[in-house]
Amino acid sequence: MTTTAGFVFDRDTTSEQVGEHAFGLTLSDRWTTFIGTSNGGYLLASCLQALRRELPQPDLLSASAHFLRPGSPGPARITTEIARVGRRTATGQATLLRDDREILRVLATFTDLAAADGPTLVRGEPPVLPPPEQCFDPADSYSSKPPSLFERVEIRMPEVPGFWHGEPGGTTSAAFWMRLADGRAADPIALACLVDAAAPIVFDLGVSGSATIELTVHIRKRPAPGWLACRVSTNYLMDGFHEEDFEIWDSTGVLVAQSRQLAIVST
Amino acid sequence: MTTTAGFVFDRDTTSEQVGEHAFGLTLSDRWTTFIGTSNGGYLLASCLQALRRELPQPDLLSASAHFLRPGSPGPARITTEIARVGRRTATGQATLLRDDREILRVLATFTDLAAADGPTLVRGEPPVLPPPEQCFDPADSYSSKPPSLFERVEIRMPEVPGFWHGEPGGTTSAAFWMRLADGRAADPIALACLVDAAAPIVFDLGVSGSATIELTVHIRKRPAPGWLACRVSTNYLMDGFHEEDFEIWDSTGVLVAQSRQLAIVST
Repeated sequence: MTTTAGFVFDRDTTSEQVGEHAFGLTLSDRWTTFIGTSNGGYLLASCLQALRRELPQPDLLSASAHFLRPGSPGPARITTEIARVGRRTATGQATLLRDDREILRVLATFTDLAAADGPTLVRGEPPVLPPPEQCFDPADSYSSKPPSLFERVEIRMPEVPGFWHGEPGGTTSAAFWMRLADGRAADPIALACLVDAAAPIVFDLGVSGSATIELTVHIRKRPAPGWLACRVSTNYLMDGFHEEDFEIWDSTGVLVAQSRQLAIVST
Repeated sequence: MTTTAGFVFDRDTTSEQVGEHAFGLTLSDRWTTFIGTSNGGYLLASCLQALRRELPQPDLLSASAHFLRPGSPGPARITTEIARVGRRTATGQATLLRDDREILRVLATFTDLAAADGPTLVRGEPPVLPPPEQCFDPADSYSSKPPSLFERVEIRMPEVPGFWHGEPGGTTSAAFWMRLADGRAADPIALACLVDAAAPIVFDLGVSGSATIELTVHIRKRPAPGWLACRVSTNYLMDGFHEEDFEIWDSTGVLVAQSRQLAIVST
């Protein structure tokens, strides 16, 4: 059993138990977005870390989060509730509050992914990417200091979408590498953070912001250490609402996370 | 304002308010699956009908459901909780109980879809299908009496996957028509039922059952009346877990619902 307690991700997502089903933490300013709010994946991971302590199964399997208000660095509370503990899966709920206002409400089901033993048939392929060292860090294209999120999460792209240098290019999909910057290997809860950690690809359509309404992530396998190959796409922007689909494949070419979020753009 | 109160869908999903945030209903035996349990989409729609009565916005936008135990016909309770009511969206929670045991827990966000007015860019197409009258009713291929769900929901397929006649053909995607059988036009909550109303396409891989763990549905537009064109696919069956993606397009060629569920097969 290795410990990850020394890594930034764990320090910043781990809360202190302050009562029955009640946790306190300070939301860190190390995971902020272009508009200074806390990254949604970081908020989700913080909720999941608290919930994991209350459920017997070790691995996140599926989490569904409804984002109610923007989150920001500072003191916060998490309350949890256990819905069902079964032999194979356990489901609970977590709510994140800031100044007693609900920021995020999450339902999540945990399991032991190592114990899964049913049939396998895979009809998809990981993205084909040049090695990370031949790719670009999109934050280098950004005209001012990138938000702190991009000091926590490293991204390497074969082509940097135009919006990164102020010229939206109209792309609605991308593939790239991603990992936690300080070398911490991803686990299921870190994957739930990372599916929301790239800038929304819809930015390349020239919109100025996108706020997540709902995000669901399914963890398909415990990830192997190393760079993660990611694929993002938005196919339907309709009346300002859009989905964003995100896949993460690990360094052994296995799909480890699938997510979809529904978001609304600001123009 | 038209009323849909006379239709089976509405009679069977509408509960009676029995207290503050408390509703009672009898789960109907008219929505059962191959194994005699209540269809998950029917259970979800029942929860959403109760929740809609407590929120000011008229249209379901996004619902995330974690399925905790199989549901079955008979007396049930629904409890609701309001998480946030905002100007543009409102979010609440519903829990379905049978014999005081939790069957289903749902988070859902509602909005007024008619008031949405942001940008639109669509990168996908509806499935291309022959007219419904040139397609087949898969229930006709089934060797015994089909489950009651298929008396409520009409399906017309250009090609019927082999599992319907006992010979799984290995397909992992399909496109077909669907509508409520008694002529009731679909609305956002009916769409949330319909995304789970076709038999799981994973049956064509020869598995004997599939139990939903989580289902999220996003409603993208109020649907026009008429036949709905649907597309289903499962690309990743891994260690017994699989996703199922489902799209519904209305009779005017507009994407009206997108869902993904995570499920586990029995073999």
